[in-house]
Amino acid sequence: MVAESFEIRLPPWLSARLVAPLQATSASERARFAIDLAARNIEHGTGGPFGAAVFQRASGKLVAVGVNLVLSTGLSCAHAEVVALSLAQRALGTPDLAPFDLELATSAEPCWMCLGAIHWSGVRSVIASARDEDVRAIGFDEGAKPADWTATLRERGTAVAIDVERDAAIAVLRRYAASGGEIYNAGE
Amino acid sequence: MVAESFEIRLPPWLSARLVAPLQATSASERARFAIDLAARNIEHGTGGPFGAAVFQRASGKLVAVGVNLVLSTGLSCAHAEVVALSLAQRALGTPDLAPFDLELATSAEPCWMCLGAIHWSGVRSVIASARDEDVRAIGFDEGAKPADWTATLRERGTAVAIDVERDAAIAVLRRYAASGGEIYNAGE
Repeated sequence: MVAESFEIRLPPWLSARLVAPLQATSASERARFAIDLAARNIEHGTGGPFGAAVFQRASGKLVAVGVNLVLSTGLSCAHAEVVALSLAQRALGTPDLAPFDLELATSAEPCWMCLGAIHWSGVRSVIASARDEDVRAIGFDEGAKPADWTATLRERGTAVAIDVERDAAIAVLRRYAASGGEIYNAGE
Repeated sequence: MVAESFEIRLPPWLSARLVAPLQATSASERARFAIDLAARNIEHGTGGPFGAAVFQRASGKLVAVGVNLVLSTGLSCAHAEVVALSLAQRALGTPDLAPFDLELATSAEPCWMCLGAIHWSGVRSVIASARDEDVRAIGFDEGAKPADWTATLRERGTAVAIDVERDAAIAVLRRYAASGGEIYNAGE
């Protein structure tokens, strides 16, 4: 049987969170929002310890959210960043987010797939919390990224801030590992 | 309005093609199948000039197909490889394709996002037709890929064959450019 479609849908606990409009004005607040999504994703058992959110850069209005849904959807592309950026595109009705001047907050540095996905999305700014090494420390692979991923994105017109609320993000990663959360990597 | 789901669905002309079981035993035949999908995607006006297909490596039985659906879905992640690999995962019910020993044929070298997506999917072998430079020659960006993307995948356990039916793939890319097909890149 050849499949003809696939859908990625936010889990019910996350949909319920989105009833009221949300706004986060500072980088720190946006980072904490993404990290909180990662923490709740663990609590609800809906995926890996990663969260992401897309905001209007100037106003801080929430545009889209994402959490890692690889295990619950059965799709290896369902990383938090891909989910959040795709939902932003769905909400705005275009594959190019550049004209909207948006900012992506991600609870951990993007892997190599998400680095490409970030660039193709046209999102103009990225806030990352945990570092690559923090993610690898609990056993997840991040892939063959460029030596300086921040420079790679900046050269292509995307602003990058790293280490924003890094300690809080590390605490969530450690909680996942300590709780026996599944560490899945390619072909293992 | 915050979106809660997105779906990627093959266009009707492609669904119709999948009624009969398909098999492609040689690398050349698998490559031509992916290139043919790219050509039909142009004819039907359903996306960019890129096609991909997933086969059982040993038998050549078709497992999944994909075409570039960025413009028709409004999602920048809807590259042919991501579509085909996700549909293979949907068909097989798992995010890890490694145990199934599958081969991905793609009408053009993967971009940086798809390189990561290929690795995370657990697909064990890749056949690529047009080269990065062929894709860039008609104006598409391929992103900041590793200097030798084939070595990067091989080191991680994925076999790679390049230039398989390259001329046929180049012809399709040129046909798209000559027909005035839209060249979309990030934030332009």
